[in-house]
Amino acid sequence: MEFTVNQIASLLGGEVKGDGELKINMLAKIQEAEKSQISFLSNLKYENHLYSTNAGAVIVNKDFEPKKPVKTTLILVEDPYSSFTVLLEEYHKFISFQKTGIEEPSFIGKDCQVGQDVYRGAFSYIGNNVKIGDNVKIYPHAYIGDNVKIGNNTIVNSGVKLYANTVIGNNCVLHSGVVIGSDGFGFAPQEDGTYKTIPQMGNVTVGDNVDIGANTVIDCATFHGDSTKIHSGVKLDNLIQIAHNVEIGKNTVIAAQSGVSGSTIIGENCVIAGQVGIAGHIVLANKTSIGAKAGLGKSIKEEDAKLMGSPAFDVKDFYRSYAAFKNLPDLNAKLKQLEEKVLNLPTFQEKQ
Amino acid sequence: MEFTVNQIASLLGGEVKGDGELKINMLAKIQEAEKSQISFLSNLKYENHLYSTNAGAVIVNKDFEPKKPVKTTLILVEDPYSSFTVLLEEYHKFISFQKTGIEEPSFIGKDCQVGQDVYRGAFSYIGNNVKIGDNVKIYPHAYIGDNVKIGNNTIVNSGVKLYANTVIGNNCVLHSGVVIGSDGFGFAPQEDGTYKTIPQMGNVTVGDNVDIGANTVIDCATFHGDSTKIHSGVKLDNLIQIAHNVEIGKNTVIAAQSGVSGSTIIGENCVIAGQVGIAGHIVLANKTSIGAKAGLGKSIKEEDAKLMGSPAFDVKDFYRSYAAFKNLPDLNAKLKQLEEKVLNLPTFQEKQ
Amino acid sequence: MEFTVNQIASLLGGEVKGDGELKINMLAKIQEAEKSQISFLSNLKYENHLYSTNAGAVIVNKDFEPKKPVKTTLILVEDPYSSFTVLLEEYHKFISFQKTGIEEPSFIGKDCQVGQDVYRGAFSYIGNNVKIGDNVKIYPHAYIGDNVKIGNNTIVNSGVKLYANTVIGNNCVLHSGVVIGSDGFGFAPQEDGTYKTIPQMGNVTVGDNVDIGANTVIDCATFHGDSTKIHSGVKLDNLIQIAHNVEIGKNTVIAAQSGVSGSTIIGENCVIAGQVGIAGHIVLANKTSIGAKAGLGKSIKEEDAKLMGSPAFDVKDFYRSYAAFKNLPDLNAKLKQLEEKVLNLPTFQEKQ
Repeated sequence: MEFTVNQIASLLGGEVKGDGELKINMLAKIQEAEKSQISFLSNLKYENHLYSTNAGAVIVNKDFEPKKPVKTTLILVEDPYSSFTVLLEEYHKFISFQKTGIEEPSFIGKDCQVGQDVYRGAFSYIGNNVKIGDNVKIYPHAYIGDNVKIGNNTIVNSGVKLYANTVIGNNCVLHSGVVIGSDGFGFAPQEDGTYKTIPQMGNVTVGDNVDIGANTVIDCATFHGDSTKIHSGVKLDNLIQIAHNVEIGKNTVIAAQSGVSGSTIIGENCVIAGQVGIAGHIVLANKTSIGAKAGLGKSIKEEDAKLMGSPAFDVKDFYRSYAAFKNLPDLNAKLKQLEEKVLNLPTFQEKQ
Repeated sequence: MEFTVNQIASLLGGEVKGDGELKINMLAKIQEAEKSQISFLSNLKYENHLYSTNAGAVIVNKDFEPKKPVKTTLILVEDPYSSFTVLLEEYHKFISFQKTGIEEPSFIGKDCQVGQDVYRGAFSYIGNNVKIGDNVKIYPHAYIGDNVKIGNNTIVNSGVKLYANTVIGNNCVLHSGVVIGSDGFGFAPQEDGTYKTIPQMGNVTVGDNVDIGANTVIDCATFHGDSTKIHSGVKLDNLIQIAHNVEIGKNTVIAAQSGVSGSTIIGENCVIAGQVGIAGHIVLANKTSIGAKAGLGKSIKEEDAKLMGSPAFDVKDFYRSYAAFKNLPDLNAKLKQLEEKVLNLPTFQEKQ
Repeated sequence: MEFTVNQIASLLGGEVKGDGELKINMLAKIQEAEKSQISFLSNLKYENHLYSTNAGAVIVNKDFEPKKPVKTTLILVEDPYSSFTVLLEEYHKFISFQKTGIEEPSFIGKDCQVGQDVYRGAFSYIGNNVKIGDNVKIYPHAYIGDNVKIGNNTIVNSGVKLYANTVIGNNCVLHSGVVIGSDGFGFAPQEDGTYKTIPQMGNVTVGDNVDIGANTVIDCATFHGDSTKIHSGVKLDNLIQIAHNVEIGKNTVIAAQSGVSGSTIIGENCVIAGQVGIAGHIVLANKTSIGAKAGLGKSIKEEDAKLMGSPAFDVKDFYRSYAAFKNLPDLNAKLKQLEEKVLNLPTFQEKQ
């Protein structure tokens, strides 16, 4: 990537103050940036960095008035932070979509539709009746089962496994080792103590702009016609377990090694920390926030709840209880002292 | 799949009451089933659904007497639930064993024996001296190391990795990303703080009718001649860790993201929930039940124990303690009040 | 492997007492060893086994004086335990480095340098500009992205995925399903509740003698020029999550299913048990020890700390608090009794 400051300003709808012909090839933090890099100043707490930075260009607010001389070129915009994230995303696309063409040997089944500018790495496998959009990148050792649909601009990294009938939207990133559409954990107990496998006949649907971290697993729904649903904008970290028939609302974020049990519905814009466990068949309101390692066993009906502990309850109450827990041996001792004191009180009778 | 009601009744040893020639192609819940689908009525609590269902056929108990007119065809059997699970299993087999033949390129080493009706997907790898039974399905990117043995009717999904010398029984399903036979975590500490790797020379044996979920890992035993053993009928969910020399008894079920440390022996028909951790070198009696997120540090000698917490203890006691834990700030406050009260009691001396 | 006792003694710098020409092909525990196997006696608590063992040879301390007749051949060394671990390691190398040559089809990109005695399994993929040292073993379905560097004697098992720019040292073992260099979990929140993906431009560097367990994931650093760093001698078990920009010090050991959040720095020679969670942006002193299932939220400044619980604190204090927690319903009851007693005390007024 190499653009002039003028080109970047035009992308952002900003105004250049300084050398518009300077060439930029990278994004960086303002205190670490070099001559060929661009950075941003949003929080004025960091204003001092602007006067000492080596960055070639810095994105600032259009109303910003420097208090000292500025060596670097400025791009003036409405909102420097959001402009910088636009650049980040452009850069992300740029570095992600360089691969193209077909490496051999690769495998593709019958009756497939494949869009423009698709990359199909060596040893990638595409089954029958698969639809793949434009600009999709399928890395080596990816497995795309029969009847799978993938939207435009989606990246399927090396070793991703998509079982038959999975549907993936546009602009998604699936990291290595992701498994989507594996059988839900459903077994019918028999009288002799054995279990019969319940066939898992549904699928998984993933919306647009979803990122799924390495080695995360999403099981398919149990019944034909049903789907485990990951809605648009969801971000899943690594090594997460999403069971059959779960639904995860728009823009919800889940950190690594958390698990969601079968048929649970998670609202939109929730934030779930790492190593959290969520029970099956419950419903979480929008904007629910769950702290690391919590175990959630009950539905959450009010928005904006913040939970902690296992079983989880209100985070502030949890920390109050936990402080007392750390102090329990003391409390125990105090109670004993008090008991003795009370026992040794002279009784009314004695005192008479 | 498409069978007549008569064919299904004959498979189940049941009697038809209604249209035996009706064609059925799917299983469904009684309240959701359509004309071409079959369902069952076992719990009479749901009897009302029978009078309104759109299912083409419903399996009922042979002694069942309808209280209202029934539109659907009935199949009368001894035990509707178990008959339905027989159908589920047949259907499961039907949808699972459609693939057959060899897709190219695939790799097979020297001195292998491969049974009838085996599917070997493109980019599947089979090492030397491997034995594969009849009707086994080996999906693309599966890796079968040297000297591995696989029984009949076993499904090895895309990306499964079986290290050398692994033994898998009949009718197993291994989901994508499963790793079996990787090195146990064994390192000999040295005086300079480094560790030397202890070679892991044992293997893993898996019995019949075992299901193993996506991205689950089972390490091999440490010594030559020893095995990590997963007995018949065990069901393992996704992302589970089974360490070296562990033994899991028949028909035990473990939910996602749980882990079992080295050399632990788990009994038969245990039920272990998700995100549970089990320490090494302990023994669990048959029918032990462990709640979600528990951490078990000690052997369990009596059958039917139910445990919770970390470290885990009796589940009822755990919930009693946890209720008190949530109430600790209150208890603390009460104790303080009481202390003050007692301190302010007039002493015997004063009262004189 | 088959060596004479004399050859083994010469490797260890030891002295033979008995049949030096005896052939040995395996290592075993002293109480289980057979004629063709070698074992060791370090702890004299187990001295009795020496007089009854069937082992062909036993490694003992050079100052050891048997109290009874010994049938087996002895090898006298300075330190039997460390000599045995040397043998273990030799044996480990022996069994690990048998594969060599190139199986077809395999893929290798442009401008790669590959050393001597390298094994490249069928369906292995090597991108452009990759450097691979001598005696490296790359198993089937391994993916080595562009610009990756791998040192000598490193084993890359089947299905390992190394993203572009990853650096791996000498004598490492990467188990199946390991993912190194996947994107860190970094998203810039937008005003409308969505997130923009922050491009992850750093890499991962892994030192020498590092073992990484199956399905473990290590994310790359966020900024170009930065690395997530796994230092030499680190041992990681299965299904571990290491987030972006984490640094793990020399000879630190982490058990299965633990996770370390972004930008945390872990010292040298730490011991971290299974299913532990460590928060982001904290620093752990050398030799920190963390118990199973702990959740660590704060930096640890003093060496040799031992922690437990979630949030974690001193392990002894934790167990004291937990003992009291198990007893909480009792404590509650006692407090209630005491309250009643105190309430029923005659007041000063009454007594007057």
